[in-house]
Amino acid sequence: MKVSYQGATGAFSEMAARVMYANSEPVACPTMQSVFRHVTTGRAARGVIPIENSLFGSVHINYDLLLKHRVRITGELMLRVRHCLLAAPGTSLADVTRVLSHPQALGQCEDFLRRTLPHAQTVPSYDTAGAAKLVASASVPGAAAIAARHAAAEYGLAVLAENIESHDQNFTRFLALARPTAANLQQIGDRPFKTSLAFDLKRNVPGALFKSLAVFALRDLDLHKIESRPLVGSPGHYLFYLDVAGRVTTPLLQRALDHLQEITGKLRVLGSYPVGAVWDRYPATK
Amino acid sequence: MKVSYQGATGAFSEMAARVMYANSEPVACPTMQSVFRHVTTGRAARGVIPIENSLFGSVHINYDLLLKHRVRITGELMLRVRHCLLAAPGTSLADVTRVLSHPQALGQCEDFLRRTLPHAQTVPSYDTAGAAKLVASASVPGAAAIAARHAAAEYGLAVLAENIESHDQNFTRFLALARPTAANLQQIGDRPFKTSLAFDLKRNVPGALFKSLAVFALRDLDLHKIESRPLVGSPGHYLFYLDVAGRVTTPLLQRALDHLQEITGKLRVLGSYPVGAVWDRYPATK
Repeated sequence: MKVSYQGATGAFSEMAARVMYANSEPVACPTMQSVFRHVTTGRAARGVIPIENSLFGSVHINYDLLLKHRVRITGELMLRVRHCLLAAPGTSLADVTRVLSHPQALGQCEDFLRRTLPHAQTVPSYDTAGAAKLVASASVPGAAAIAARHAAAEYGLAVLAENIESHDQNFTRFLALARPTAANLQQIGDRPFKTSLAFDLKRNVPGALFKSLAVFALRDLDLHKIESRPLVGSPGHYLFYLDVAGRVTTPLLQRALDHLQEITGKLRVLGSYPVGAVWDRYPATK
Repeated sequence: MKVSYQGATGAFSEMAARVMYANSEPVACPTMQSVFRHVTTGRAARGVIPIENSLFGSVHINYDLLLKHRVRITGELMLRVRHCLLAAPGTSLADVTRVLSHPQALGQCEDFLRRTLPHAQTVPSYDTAGAAKLVASASVPGAAAIAARHAAAEYGLAVLAENIESHDQNFTRFLALARPTAANLQQIGDRPFKTSLAFDLKRNVPGALFKSLAVFALRDLDLHKIESRPLVGSPGHYLFYLDVAGRVTTPLLQRALDHLQEITGKLRVLGSYPVGAVWDRYPATK
């Protein structure tokens, strides 16, 4: 089964695809748009996209793509982001004079760098896997990359230090996407479900959001996520993203959605899927 | 007056600093942490940080820094993000063979690139201003950068095309920070205020969030922003970010906050400041 993701081989998205779909064939895409196209055209059975990070927030642009494409969320995964310092085999920590990585990764490893490599120069690069690739191919003496452990295996690099990030709550939530079928709304086993919704409130009426949450609170339906997104240039016009406990095909949630429809403008069910695992182990690659 | 921001000269953050504080001296910082340090130590009178983008969501890591430092939000600005194609003077559109920029900017200009430069190679780089700097310094024939208009003046480049982004709702919201004083909670003129709050809910009790919003709905206080942030690894433990209309020193909002304190765990007022302007014009630089 082909599973498309955005990024270079060795990216965290590739790992999410491998964890969610064992024995699948991950397919690297240059853009998020192409991941969605792979799913809608059937070129891939699934797409895997990052939707929020515990440090960097929701990826609104992926919510936009969800609303634009005929796809359905069929699963989720919370993947722990762990960083390593990678360099060409034979390099020791004392040899490292410059460290390449994505600026966010450099920031997350600031304490380690200050303590262990106070004189190394930091060089921002496009992504963590790309930095590892560059270190592997450029053979610049003293160059190291901050990237995921599995990027070391991918590019033939040695791991000089592990778990070097300061923040111990760094997770990225990934969603799996498929073409909509009746089958991908059905309960599998007895795992609890959640349902992802997007809706807008046409006017900035005080209490409109409160009323739309009442729809769930009055039915004792628990909310996993709530986020307002202002549409700048349309004052008082908001999009809301809501994840609610339950399966969309149950009568209770169906009644809640009927009720919500009375209050809101556009309402879209993005998917109804088993609550995802928190993944803090790293699988062996290749 | 010194105003610190993160990024290279010509970055959108520098422009936000110039728009918010005319005649100020913008000071470039390598990291967000150093912007906060400049403010707390008094090295800069103000700091300007991005807090959310209409396409890429909230910058949670800046919320973390807000909670960690003794600073107060004193203002905000919604800055329109507009992209241009920049190249060395004398270059024409037909000469362009590769386009450098931040991947998000490349994505936002995908339609323009497909239509106008279908054969150009896209090269991801760290940031838009950095791409402009590289194009200016490297003198690679056929290289162009996607960046802000004012980066052209900064690095001596020509503007080949303007407003080339597909998405017409691309805004970044910036916050101004200062050391807390009694003065920076006071009403200036008659501009409406908003107040930014962060609080946590200790248990995932159904309806707890609903009750905390009732605090405002029952008093007809309008909400500008609401966002839940799960603390992965602490199931059922959430942080909430809320922007509510009004000034924190008014009795009505004070009573609402007393009421909220009964329901929530930790509650922090991040600042109370005039509702910011939406800035869609670009000032002349230098």
